Amino acid sequence: MASGNQRMKKKMENPPRSMLRHVLVVSLALNVSFILRIMLYQTQQTHHKSPFSISSSSSTATRRRSLVNSTRSDRPPDKERLINLDHGDPRMYERYWRKRGEKTSITIAGWESMSYFSQGENICWFMEPELAEEVVRLHNLVGNAVTQGRHIVVGTGSSQLFLAALYALSPTHHSHQPITVVSALPYYSSYPSMTDYQKSGLYKWGGDAETYDDEKDGPYIELVTSPNNPDGYTRESVVKNKRQGLFIHDLAYYWPQYTPISYPSDHDLTLFTLSKATGHSGTRIGWALVKDSVVAKKMTKFIELNTIGVSKDSQLRAAKILEAVSDSCEEEESFFKYSYEIMAHRWRKLRAAVEGNALFTLPNFSPAFCNFFNHYTQPQPAFLWLKCEGLIEDCASFLRQHKILSRSGERFGVSPKYVRISMLDTDENFMEFIERLSSIHL
Amino acid sequence: MASGNQRMKKKMENPPRSMLRHVLVVSLALNVSFILRIMLYQTQQTHHKSPFSISSSSSTATRRRSLVNSTRSDRPPDKERLINLDHGDPRMYERYWRKRGEKTSITIAGWESMSYFSQGENICWFMEPELAEEVVRLHNLVGNAVTQGRHIVVGTGSSQLFLAALYALSPTHHSHQPITVVSALPYYSSYPSMTDYQKSGLYKWGGDAETYDDEKDGPYIELVTSPNNPDGYTRESVVKNKRQGLFIHDLAYYWPQYTPISYPSDHDLTLFTLSKATGHSGTRIGWALVKDSVVAKKMTKFIELNTIGVSKDSQLRAAKILEAVSDSCEEEESFFKYSYEIMAHRWRKLRAAVEGNALFTLPNFSPAFCNFFNHYTQPQPAFLWLKCEGLIEDCASFLRQHKILSRSGERFGVSPKYVRISMLDTDENFMEFIERLSSIHL
Repeated sequence: MASGNQRMKKKMENPPRSMLRHVLVVSLALNVSFILRIMLYQTQQTHHKSPFSISSSSSTATRRRSLVNSTRSDRPPDKERLINLDHGDPRMYERYWRKRGEKTSITIAGWESMSYFSQGENICWFMEPELAEEVVRLHNLVGNAVTQGRHIVVGTGSSQLFLAALYALSPTHHSHQPITVVSALPYYSSYPSMTDYQKSGLYKWGGDAETYDDEKDGPYIELVTSPNNPDGYTRESVVKNKRQGLFIHDLAYYWPQYTPISYPSDHDLTLFTLSKATGHSGTRIGWALVKDSVVAKKMTKFIELNTIGVSKDSQLRAAKILEAVSDSCEEEESFFKYSYEIMAHRWRKLRAAVEGNALFTLPNFSPAFCNFFNHYTQPQPAFLWLKCEGLIEDCASFLRQHKILSRSGERFGVSPKYVRISMLDTDENFMEFIERLSSIHL
Repeated sequence: MASGNQRMKKKMENPPRSMLRHVLVVSLALNVSFILRIMLYQTQQTHHKSPFSISSSSSTATRRRSLVNSTRSDRPPDKERLINLDHGDPRMYERYWRKRGEKTSITIAGWESMSYFSQGENICWFMEPELAEEVVRLHNLVGNAVTQGRHIVVGTGSSQLFLAALYALSPTHHSHQPITVVSALPYYSSYPSMTDYQKSGLYKWGGDAETYDDEKDGPYIELVTSPNNPDGYTRESVVKNKRQGLFIHDLAYYWPQYTPISYPSDHDLTLFTLSKATGHSGTRIGWALVKDSVVAKKMTKFIELNTIGVSKDSQLRAAKILEAVSDSCEEEESFFKYSYEIMAHRWRKLRAAVEGNALFTLPNFSPAFCNFFNHYTQPQPAFLWLKCEGLIEDCASFLRQHKILSRSGERFGVSPKYVRISMLDTDENFMEFIERLSSIHL
């Protein structure tokens, strides 16, 4: 598969002239016939800063809801409806949790968890100790993070922890200029807006980490997302001179179903989130593993000022879910094995759907030894990072003509020839997406 | 009671010379004997920006936990332990919810509420429709807010909504200076730090609203907290020329157990929170009633960038709790009647404890007709705003010598002769507080 793709990729880089002509004709025809449909979604195209472009749309509530509903529906796919794979709502996991049944339910009585405070001896005074225990247990079982000598800080999703980390790492002295925040291209589409929306005097977005030179440009915070969102590749920090660098490692996707677990991560400040680990996005729970107690205290302070702690209900639910995942690792079929198989199946389907199709290029990954599964595995990311080849300059618009809503490469700081597509939607939506993708030919 | 207090207040303003001499002697003696104890808590005194000074303390986790535990314990009061009434943890309500039993429990299955999105037609795309319905139902039953023609925005507590409102009301054009945020003295102690901790270029803290003049000082956002935290008085906006004013009405305490419900509030942007209404602080749910759809959209956008929505588990729990409260209003003893009686009892105990004690002054309130109870009621705020009289310059330190932890008036922008004391702690802690307060004499 990998070598086949390499050949295809090579072919893509030098397409024959006849193919280009075909693409041009097809592209022009499509452009004319679909102009009206494109206009319908123009509002969304003009709102490029949202992690959920659907929600940032200024279109009417009704239109927005019909789009949202299109990913939530269990009804049979309708050729005319838009499949929204723009965001990364991990609907794929619902089936697993249904299978597990009532064992993973949580009941909270009216009088429970009423206080702002939690018990325990943590710097993070609002963290439920059972959540902290389950976080440590799971990391130790999976082997994806060193937890010893770390403070855990719980957050309302890893978004809040990202902001808390920027706050904690920024220089506090009044005379300081805002510190520059950088990340290698293509970077997570929400980083720029999340960094800059408050116009903070503490930190500011600086763009591509590859072109940053701290000898010239001064102190910085580098965001290292690994496996990377959008493209799924394993990453390390890239700034040339690292003497003035502070690092936030976003390891939301460093779980066995997405990538080989080759080593336990061992960074100063690492972010994880329940959303991508188990699929519980609605619960809004993330956690940070933090070496320096001063940084952990400042992050805790940020969350105190931002939301006075983190929902106890969600923390207790997250503890229950993580416990179920850990328990499953000690049973015959672990949650990760189950999820890995689904991801493997989806990536096989996907590669088969575009095999030999000169319009599209997929990323290629090398297998590596996974300590969790105890054999070699292939990366099979939560997002497809797709390139439209030839004359298709705006891949997102092109796919939208086929009723596939994706996120343009421009949102990730690169060319609109690329799009990011969620691989975690419901089976129905995924299969419909594969069918539509297969039908796109020259 | 009111006229007795007025006499006492008058007496306080002109204390006889012999009394002053007594106070001086007592004060000096106390100062010497308690210096070591004061030093023990010095760290907390130096961290004045936290809504939870206990958590902002840089003291060791162990010491911090022992303080926190002191408010959580059900064991009999120990004369040596510190009673922490600095924060407003509404522990008082637990007994009510225990009485209600399993009817107010919530069970969430492992596969439920996994998506980022919620169903419904709201601008606030992550809001659970059943929560919105229960919010409207309860406001209509209580009569404390107009809900017609309002958009509801749910937040991770009203803190997040406060920040979302600042973001939504600030001018967005790049050329603009940050808008000034003001509030009349004494203001909620967290307003300055919540406004300024991000060093935002959109808004900045401007202090006392009374001295603000928008003809001279330009556009502003005024925070109107009514009943006011810390002092419990009903408030309206106070800036002299209101032509350039935008308003955030924080009505966290506008519920029948705290104050007469004289009219349904009808402002542009109003904040409420579950914490103070029903006592469920750990659930972190607040809501805003917003007239302008553009403002509601911007607030929603803020929460999207801040935490990608609000915990679904907590929203569902909040809906269940609000439903139970509304149901109780249609039964014989409503939640508000029950809570009103406890508050009335506590305020009677409190007034009796300091009656004739020249050291302390309490605020005086006028009764008003409460449309919910259909009779006149007295304000009985969630916080006691206590003044130490005579030579006691630092009321918080003075009370700390008696093992009562309160929040200094300085934190609210006024004199350290004042302190704020929570009236919502457990029965045990409240009664122990009353006993200690009664024992403080010249």
